[in-house]
Amino acid sequence: MTRINLPLDKCWKLLNHGPVTVITSAHGGKTNVMAASWAMPLDYDPPKILLVLDAAAYSRELIDASGEFGLQIPKRRIAEQTVAVGQSSGRNGDKFSRFGLKTFPAQQIAAPMLEDCVAWMECKVIPDASQRYDLFIAEVVACYVDSDRFHDNQWDFGPDPLERSMHYISNGEFFSTGERFRVPTLD
Amino acid sequence: MTRINLPLDKCWKLLNHGPVTVITSAHGGKTNVMAASWAMPLDYDPPKILLVLDAAAYSRELIDASGEFGLQIPKRRIAEQTVAVGQSSGRNGDKFSRFGLKTFPAQQIAAPMLEDCVAWMECKVIPDASQRYDLFIAEVVACYVDSDRFHDNQWDFGPDPLERSMHYISNGEFFSTGERFRVPTLD
Repeated sequence: MTRINLPLDKCWKLLNHGPVTVITSAHGGKTNVMAASWAMPLDYDPPKILLVLDAAAYSRELIDASGEFGLQIPKRRIAEQTVAVGQSSGRNGDKFSRFGLKTFPAQQIAAPMLEDCVAWMECKVIPDASQRYDLFIAEVVACYVDSDRFHDNQWDFGPDPLERSMHYISNGEFFSTGERFRVPTLD
Repeated sequence: MTRINLPLDKCWKLLNHGPVTVITSAHGGKTNVMAASWAMPLDYDPPKILLVLDAAAYSRELIDASGEFGLQIPKRRIAEQTVAVGQSSGRNGDKFSRFGLKTFPAQQIAAPMLEDCVAWMECKVIPDASQRYDLFIAEVVACYVDSDRFHDNQWDFGPDPLERSMHYISNGEFFSTGERFRVPTLD
């Protein structure tokens, strides 16, 4: 596996299919990690995304203070950790070590980025009145992919079910990203 | 198939897995239909959703004028029509008849609702400055499901691949909503 940077105007392709995400953050020597299903693209170039985060989440404190977050699309091999970081608070102890999550340094933000993901986005918050809805608008300043899972401008999840992205239902249940198919287009 | 209304505070479950949507609209005797991948929940109760719609879309004129839209989650059996209504403009003729899309009347809005979907939401736009980002915040005023596909408070897509929801990639390609699985939770 190699992490390969994508051109920023291709970044929308990573979230377009609606996978669950994991959000990392850092401020003042503290870091945190949580799950978020409510993330999607907002614009193509420069790429912007939308993220809804509960006002009570500890990650909110770090993101509000730093103006940055990491967004990553986890592989099914860390499905259990994805649920666990969504069910527990970083106020009660470091979740990276508690759940055995491996990280690597980001390129342009302070938040650590998670291993065992298919794609990553480094994001800077665009201050906006919509934050009253717990809604963040952010610009993606770097994005990269697991080159085994995304190459030639498209997803390639391969045969291993643990290498696929996921779509969250609730209560520890997901849908795997399923069969790929094509229909005739008007073009 | 029977359409069953869901309690409004359960509506978030319908979009949580990130499926592609189809948006219907009506104003002044005109109606339109388009596809949208960029739709997700914003809040639980009262339920609010986010929808990103290109400013150039004909649907924007009807939604801006009426303050309403229908959002539905299409079944794979209308995948080809979902792509077609995303690739063509209602300015050039009625897309419902052109693509053979069957509709039924909504409960609380003027927009027609589409057959061959797993779930439907009737939405009223909440005016907000975020519209400068082509972003709509809307309250869901009614939501209902195909009772064969969602019952007992959860999805049941069954064995027929044409009865599943879909996740859009691009250029006429989708992922089917895949295998359902559960992981241990902290509770």
